[in-house]
Amino acid sequence: MKEIIFITGGQRSGKSRFAQEIALQKSSNPTYLATARVWDDDFKERIRYHQSDRDHRWTTIEEDKHLSKLDLNKATVVLDCITLWLTNFFFDSKYNIQKSKEQAIAEWDGLIKQNFTLIVVGNELGMGVHPENENARKFADLNGWINQHIAASADEVFLMTSGIPLKIK
Amino acid sequence: MKEIIFITGGQRSGKSRFAQEIALQKSSNPTYLATARVWDDDFKERIRYHQSDRDHRWTTIEEDKHLSKLDLNKATVVLDCITLWLTNFFFDSKYNIQKSKEQAIAEWDGLIKQNFTLIVVGNELGMGVHPENENARKFADLNGWINQHIAASADEVFLMTSGIPLKIK
Amino acid sequence: MKEIIFITGGQRSGKSRFAQEIALQKSSNPTYLATARVWDDDFKERIRYHQSDRDHRWTTIEEDKHLSKLDLNKATVVLDCITLWLTNFFFDSKYNIQKSKEQAIAEWDGLIKQNFTLIVVGNELGMGVHPENENARKFADLNGWINQHIAASADEVFLMTSGIPLKIK
Repeated sequence: MKEIIFITGGQRSGKSRFAQEIALQKSSNPTYLATARVWDDDFKERIRYHQSDRDHRWTTIEEDKHLSKLDLNKATVVLDCITLWLTNFFFDSKYNIQKSKEQAIAEWDGLIKQNFTLIVVGNELGMGVHPENENARKFADLNGWINQHIAASADEVFLMTSGIPLKIK
Repeated sequence: MKEIIFITGGQRSGKSRFAQEIALQKSSNPTYLATARVWDDDFKERIRYHQSDRDHRWTTIEEDKHLSKLDLNKATVVLDCITLWLTNFFFDSKYNIQKSKEQAIAEWDGLIKQNFTLIVVGNELGMGVHPENENARKFADLNGWINQHIAASADEVFLMTSGIPLKIK
Repeated sequence: MKEIIFITGGQRSGKSRFAQEIALQKSSNPTYLATARVWDDDFKERIRYHQSDRDHRWTTIEEDKHLSKLDLNKATVVLDCITLWLTNFFFDSKYNIQKSKEQAIAEWDGLIKQNFTLIVVGNELGMGVHPENENARKFADLNGWINQHIAASADEVFLMTSGIPLKIK
């Protein structure tokens, strides 16, 4: 049965951990689909931190943009995360928000045609003071638009706050 | 019957769209009360983006500060948005948070004496790292105080996250 | 009976006021445990603003780091707030996130061994665009981790938005 669960919330609010717990309730051999491109040591450290959470039951796939080409039929997948995935479109398009949006939506709509269980992790980026940096402001717009698109296609949506999940859809 | 509904949430979380949907459920000819002052091309672009959402059923009024003088008796009004409206007091008072707060509260309290349906859009600005810029920090304080005042006078309050409304009052 | 209530939310979302209301419902002479170190005039102003909220029923204790050494047996305590408390560890450790985390968790775990009612105020810092400043980014991580730890030990957790409490645990 096809199922999409969207976990959103702030930085270090326990989203990845909660997504992985759900996956392990649904499957004994889930897939971790990592979208992070390793930009710098800070990212490398964050990736290592997340990897140490996962044990031998997990299969890891890395794909930084082209999600629609993956074969995930009947898998239980944690996609972690939407924000890093969007960063890659935004960077490669030289900060073109419209182009990034179209490409991301096309990849997402392609991905979810599959028959699988998808637990997808996103970030809320729009509840702080609007950044002075123009590209940061644009990226928050892009992230917000795509979050809306994903939440609309999801069967369930959870907002994480301080490690506590709140079901909002 | 008088009714005040407050829609708050992050940047690009679907607040305006949701506010407009509510207005169209309540009226066949709602009023859109725009508070944005056109500061730069980025703002012009955002205003154009929001205008393209609305069709012939809408009447648009522009008022960047003095809401209490408007005659909106029996109208169904979307006030969009509190944050841009507050920006105008903050700017005109040369970043005087106390003066801005008093003026905004006086205008708000005057506005809601009317017999109308008001759907008001705000922004959560205080859930990011506190900005280094002093005026940005002060503005987040101002916005938070006024949001509390508005939420206290509202019959219903919704928090939008990734396009999903959550009724919190 | 031991009880821990965690109030989290954005800047100026009414967290302190709500925490104090809860304390006064539970006790006629609650204790206010202030963790702020006075860094500059802006902080002094904020502290004065919060103090003016409290009347003669309150006893104020100031402790900027070492919560575990306090004797609060049978007291009803508002701890305000976790973010300022964490700032002190972060600063004193020269921005060492791991050391700050360990020290803070040790102090917290020591504090909550007592038999008391604790209403603790925190901040959500991770729902804005990730800051460019590396230390700000690290601090948001630290704050998020400790919030998760506190929420896990709490009996009840409330998310404040525009002055409206939402019970999430």
